[in-house]
Amino acid sequence: MGEEAKVEVLPEEFDPKGIQGPIGPESNGVEVVLGRNVHKMCLSIQEPETDEEVTGEREAYMASVLARYRKSLVERTQHHLGYPLNLDFDYGALVQLQHFSINNLGDPFIESNYGVHSREFEVGVLDWFARLWELEKNEYWGYITNCGTEGNLHGILVGREVFPDGILYASMESHYSVFKAARMYRMECVQINTLVSGEIDCADFLEKLLLNKEKPAIVNVNIGTTVKGAVDDLDRVIKTLEEAGYKDRFYIHCDGALFGLMMPFVKQAPKVTFKKPIDSVSVSGHKFVGCPMPCGVQITRLKHINDFSRNVEYLASRDATIMGSRNGHGPIFLWYTLNRKGYKGFQKEVQKCLRNAHYLKDRLREAKISAMLNELSSTVVFERPKDEGFIRRWQLACQGNIAHVVVMPNVSIKKLDNFLKELVQERANWYQDEKIQSPCVAADIGKENCICVVHKN
Amino acid sequence: MGEEAKVEVLPEEFDPKGIQGPIGPESNGVEVVLGRNVHKMCLSIQEPETDEEVTGEREAYMASVLARYRKSLVERTQHHLGYPLNLDFDYGALVQLQHFSINNLGDPFIESNYGVHSREFEVGVLDWFARLWELEKNEYWGYITNCGTEGNLHGILVGREVFPDGILYASMESHYSVFKAARMYRMECVQINTLVSGEIDCADFLEKLLLNKEKPAIVNVNIGTTVKGAVDDLDRVIKTLEEAGYKDRFYIHCDGALFGLMMPFVKQAPKVTFKKPIDSVSVSGHKFVGCPMPCGVQITRLKHINDFSRNVEYLASRDATIMGSRNGHGPIFLWYTLNRKGYKGFQKEVQKCLRNAHYLKDRLREAKISAMLNELSSTVVFERPKDEGFIRRWQLACQGNIAHVVVMPNVSIKKLDNFLKELVQERANWYQDEKIQSPCVAADIGKENCICVVHKN
Repeated sequence: MGEEAKVEVLPEEFDPKGIQGPIGPESNGVEVVLGRNVHKMCLSIQEPETDEEVTGEREAYMASVLARYRKSLVERTQHHLGYPLNLDFDYGALVQLQHFSINNLGDPFIESNYGVHSREFEVGVLDWFARLWELEKNEYWGYITNCGTEGNLHGILVGREVFPDGILYASMESHYSVFKAARMYRMECVQINTLVSGEIDCADFLEKLLLNKEKPAIVNVNIGTTVKGAVDDLDRVIKTLEEAGYKDRFYIHCDGALFGLMMPFVKQAPKVTFKKPIDSVSVSGHKFVGCPMPCGVQITRLKHINDFSRNVEYLASRDATIMGSRNGHGPIFLWYTLNRKGYKGFQKEVQKCLRNAHYLKDRLREAKISAMLNELSSTVVFERPKDEGFIRRWQLACQGNIAHVVVMPNVSIKKLDNFLKELVQERANWYQDEKIQSPCVAADIGKENCICVVHKN
Repeated sequence: MGEEAKVEVLPEEFDPKGIQGPIGPESNGVEVVLGRNVHKMCLSIQEPETDEEVTGEREAYMASVLARYRKSLVERTQHHLGYPLNLDFDYGALVQLQHFSINNLGDPFIESNYGVHSREFEVGVLDWFARLWELEKNEYWGYITNCGTEGNLHGILVGREVFPDGILYASMESHYSVFKAARMYRMECVQINTLVSGEIDCADFLEKLLLNKEKPAIVNVNIGTTVKGAVDDLDRVIKTLEEAGYKDRFYIHCDGALFGLMMPFVKQAPKVTFKKPIDSVSVSGHKFVGCPMPCGVQITRLKHINDFSRNVEYLASRDATIMGSRNGHGPIFLWYTLNRKGYKGFQKEVQKCLRNAHYLKDRLREAKISAMLNELSSTVVFERPKDEGFIRRWQLACQGNIAHVVVMPNVSIKKLDNFLKELVQERANWYQDEKIQSPCVAADIGKENCICVVHKN
């Protein structure tokens, strides 16, 4: 070495446990209830011993934690119904890649000197989606995001850069990330009412557009809302904008989180296509496709990004993505599944999901349980189960008096039957006392779908 | 089933290839040079055939693509020097978890009904970092991010929520995500000059603070700049704010992307601690720790998040993270490494990195190549190699006339020797003609570090 390093590192005898407070098992599971920092569950980090025998014990401890965790994941995956995630995947062939730090730094179309990336897979996936949404290869730009939220954040940001004084319009049942974006970006935001189905109410939209005619419109269109799976009528949204005289002073972002990938396979669904005057579409990759970690796809018109990037370059930023470092494994998972299943594979799975969703809704109604299923959706909305333990067990997402099951490709008739059987049995207990009634959900899903004591048919 | 699904899916004979343009091998590698959408490399998706024999061929094709890709990753990982990534990890024990869709939706401290998460690991990791930066367990809030950029975006956003009319101050050598944040959030932003070392110039900072006294200051402090690995003098930044009369009208975000995790182990380094009036710290998880995909840690004071969340709740948003769905594998990778290595393990690795960085700098200077190494850094900055092929081969990050090598734990003396040998050999060729001189880098790294024809000692 020849020369001593000039920087002195901390001495060997430095005691990390001495810094502050206890470390180790005693801090496990301690509940600190203050504000939002609630330590209900915590696997704390324990400083390894230098003694090799103890190191062996440590390895055994860690292996046992992981084994228990794996077991709980199996159980939780089995009883999962409420979130739109396809848990049915097998990426065994890709396990070999976990040894690499794959990072698609910045723009997928700009080469970086960092060589451990998966841009060639990413661009293949993006091409597939651009074709799905009918945007020419040389007219689109996009990237694989960390999740649906990043897609919304990006689409709305591009909209704001195109129309700096534009007002963001979004229906009340839009995903909360849309309103988060408005706040982050300091945009004026106008909420639009929804119909009982969860769709945007275009009459209200027209009224609100007419109130703000001096400013351009940036519109979030839901291709499947989070709670009810409602699909906003894109054609009517466009017609409403034209009626209100916005001509080309609007930017449309389609939040296709879940259904953006299912709808192209449903014949009478309003088509999401760049042949219509839309500007960006985002979709989640981990939902319908299925992926070990969240990811998403964001596609927009190249011309917007060229404008956007000129501004960004001025600030010495190198790319037009939201995140700089990007997970390079996501694109490979998507590439793998798209290649294996293809259009036809997805088509079959969509068909299955829609059939099973109808099956679930019909069985619920037969059991006199209030339920609704939107025409283009596989999200079955129904009366919220009375017992929180039951909700947690089946991992149902709830809002007020309603809950939902999102029927994904891994949700089989058998799984639904198990769920129905348990629900019907438990429900008999919850409501055995006649004084306790099941909730009225007419306000949430319409009188015609409610079977409460007042509305029962 | 009893009843037909009401929604008709597309007919079986639907031809996805008919949508638009060619699909399949012919679109492989086609270069479309327009704007930023350059298809240099693309593994396009090919619609699978229904014929089983062909399916077998398809599987074989995919396996061969993956095998070739794996081989290239091995090669690229071996020749990697320019980016701050520790590529030396073994997560074999965690391969079993790749079968699960692990998603830490929203806030790590708020339970979600979605059961397939890893919050217990995440909170353990966060506790470790809060302790490292000396913030009490019941006084911090944080989460595991997708990358260092998300940490900066979060820290600066919290700063803006605390001081809505605050001005963002950041040195010119800050990471570009800091300026991206200013633009995204519509914040006034003032750039501060840097010293030759890359550190913030506090004299310039003071001057600019005095010009804007009526507005609070939101300050980004670099704990290791991207290019030169310079560490801003936190104590002097705080003193400057006080001198300028800002008292408690400031918010400090520490961008500790790489060195935030190395500095606690260096004795004379200015300490990053919440005992000083700082407000948030972010660090990348995939850099020094090493992780198959990007991730990071963000820690802030709980009181800020309580204020922040009240605003967010008003907008019906459920959490204070930037992303909604979050990769649940990241926390497990971090938990695993922290448990295995602990403080002492990191300490040894930091020591090794600093020693090897000094070794590299000394050898470069011996070979009469301009080079600089900041005292607290393992980033060796030197004259940009003349040949782009050489730069790509060693994956060096460059800026103007300079390049750098970030000495990470996986960068051994042997790897450095190989690099040095090759550089010296090639350089003899580049500059054999006396008319061609190596670049002067005095403006970048100081006269005392430059060995160009003018400054050679």
